[in-house]
Amino acid sequence: MAILITGVAGFIGSNLARKFLAEQKVVIGIDNLCRGSLTNIASLQDDPLFTFAQLDLCDLTAYEKCIGDYLKKESISEVWHLAANSDIPAGISDAAIDLRDTFMTTYNTLEIMKHHQIDVLAFASTSAVYGDLGERLLDEDIGPLFPISNYGAMKLASEALISASVESFLKRAYIYRFPNVIGTPATHGVILDFIAKLKKIPDQLEVLGNGSQKKGYLHVHDLIDAMLTIQERANDPINYFNIGAGDEGIYVRDIAQMVVQAVSPSAAIAYGQGDKGWVGDVPRFQYSIEKLKKLGWTPKLSSEQAVRLAIEQILAEQSK
Amino acid sequence: MAILITGVAGFIGSNLARKFLAEQKVVIGIDNLCRGSLTNIASLQDDPLFTFAQLDLCDLTAYEKCIGDYLKKESISEVWHLAANSDIPAGISDAAIDLRDTFMTTYNTLEIMKHHQIDVLAFASTSAVYGDLGERLLDEDIGPLFPISNYGAMKLASEALISASVESFLKRAYIYRFPNVIGTPATHGVILDFIAKLKKIPDQLEVLGNGSQKKGYLHVHDLIDAMLTIQERANDPINYFNIGAGDEGIYVRDIAQMVVQAVSPSAAIAYGQGDKGWVGDVPRFQYSIEKLKKLGWTPKLSSEQAVRLAIEQILAEQSK
Repeated sequence: MAILITGVAGFIGSNLARKFLAEQKVVIGIDNLCRGSLTNIASLQDDPLFTFAQLDLCDLTAYEKCIGDYLKKESISEVWHLAANSDIPAGISDAAIDLRDTFMTTYNTLEIMKHHQIDVLAFASTSAVYGDLGERLLDEDIGPLFPISNYGAMKLASEALISASVESFLKRAYIYRFPNVIGTPATHGVILDFIAKLKKIPDQLEVLGNGSQKKGYLHVHDLIDAMLTIQERANDPINYFNIGAGDEGIYVRDIAQMVVQAVSPSAAIAYGQGDKGWVGDVPRFQYSIEKLKKLGWTPKLSSEQAVRLAIEQILAEQSK
Repeated sequence: MAILITGVAGFIGSNLARKFLAEQKVVIGIDNLCRGSLTNIASLQDDPLFTFAQLDLCDLTAYEKCIGDYLKKESISEVWHLAANSDIPAGISDAAIDLRDTFMTTYNTLEIMKHHQIDVLAFASTSAVYGDLGERLLDEDIGPLFPISNYGAMKLASEALISASVESFLKRAYIYRFPNVIGTPATHGVILDFIAKLKKIPDQLEVLGNGSQKKGYLHVHDLIDAMLTIQERANDPINYFNIGAGDEGIYVRDIAQMVVQAVSPSAAIAYGQGDKGWVGDVPRFQYSIEKLKKLGWTPKLSSEQAVRLAIEQILAEQSK
């Protein structure tokens, strides 16, 4: 019985595949290599338990053929659907990006699952489904859900389609609402941006917004541990959980200072205006992980510890 | 300044167009005539204030050309996006129907509005976005939102895309969550089904489910009155309101009896099993309209009165 991972060559997908393979599980991974890269899965390619297929999930015919062929030799027990656009600002200027890569990939994955009677789905959702609810503590049952980015909108759209599918053909769905996840292989995000800026101009770091955005960060190893714990312990038809460090998060200005310290200690930090980094950015929010804690899970690293470790890991990765 | 109504040849669209034209407003209406019909707008076609275009909103090129051409002679101040699949069970067997007709029509409408800087949108959403939350009183801020039909899912997806658009380019959005709306010209729904069944087999009425489903019904005239009241009095960037009769609703078995009484008083009623009429049906729910009442609006007809009037109106329409 194989596990299908979509977006396997991305940041989280490659870490998840590595984890499953280490547990001797059979994995088929799909990626269009648009944002993911072969480098991220290079070390997995020799594992006989791993099969990689390069294809675009938006091409339903190719997707269907790939899965149909694979099923002739091995059955698929569950799907981890991680493929999505990860560049939120890009999706705001062009709605077609999140329509295709964030939503239609989910739509097609559900069509394939329905057709082949694969009935367990784990889905990478996001805190962005909550939109900007101000300073309210975001638990999983809060409303209203009015995302402020097309990325958040198309993740919420995906959740909605999954819940309708649970009513009609899925046995079980896991909806994991991700926070900002950090670690390596890093593909995007504030830490990577700051490092890139400092490597270009070592004496100054320009920060979008005034640095007062405060967000929680979770290390990818904690994220994967949380997802597997949930899947082991929660067995409702729809299992939906916030995943996060559960602390108050860390200010962008603190991240800026930590990156400056690690990369170019003499650099000056120049802040912009306002408390949003960009349109669609949620300036600050607090994420409740009480539901997850009730399952007996706690993160190993706080937001600050995760940021510190990720900076180290990214710099180590870049100096290879 | 014209008002664009999508789905203008449908049940609600045609009533809304009639209302606006009676107020001397300029209206451009679009419909693909897939579920709507020219009969519904026949009486409007001679009005010089009314322009009708038959096109499928999923065809973005044709949509863009139609609006581009129209804008050469008249500007558009707001869009009422009512076009959608209205056959919920059909959308459950084939997810492509709601993807196209319920979601992509919204996506394309937003693309057109962004392109032409039309910045006020009124959207026909639905109580189906709430899924099945049991006996809880459904206010607008309840969660979680896990629809159980693809129709509900694609309406929630549309809401999400609209809220993201408010963040980026829309000045104002009205999200109207419709209950079961009844009246004429009737296109679908339980009253029409019962009448059709009785006209076919006059001595027996077969009811899907055990008749214990209880739902609120609103007459289309009350619906339109509520929407216009909201638009007059609510001016947030996103104005989202449940619209309904605000009572406890009426049992399907009571509707069955009322239709039997009006059509074929000697018919026996045969009930099915279970409290769901079909997959994706929400057996009973209570819909809070407190937010709407706070604006000073109340419905003229209760659910029962609306059902009674709609039965009369539909029978009168059919005997024409």
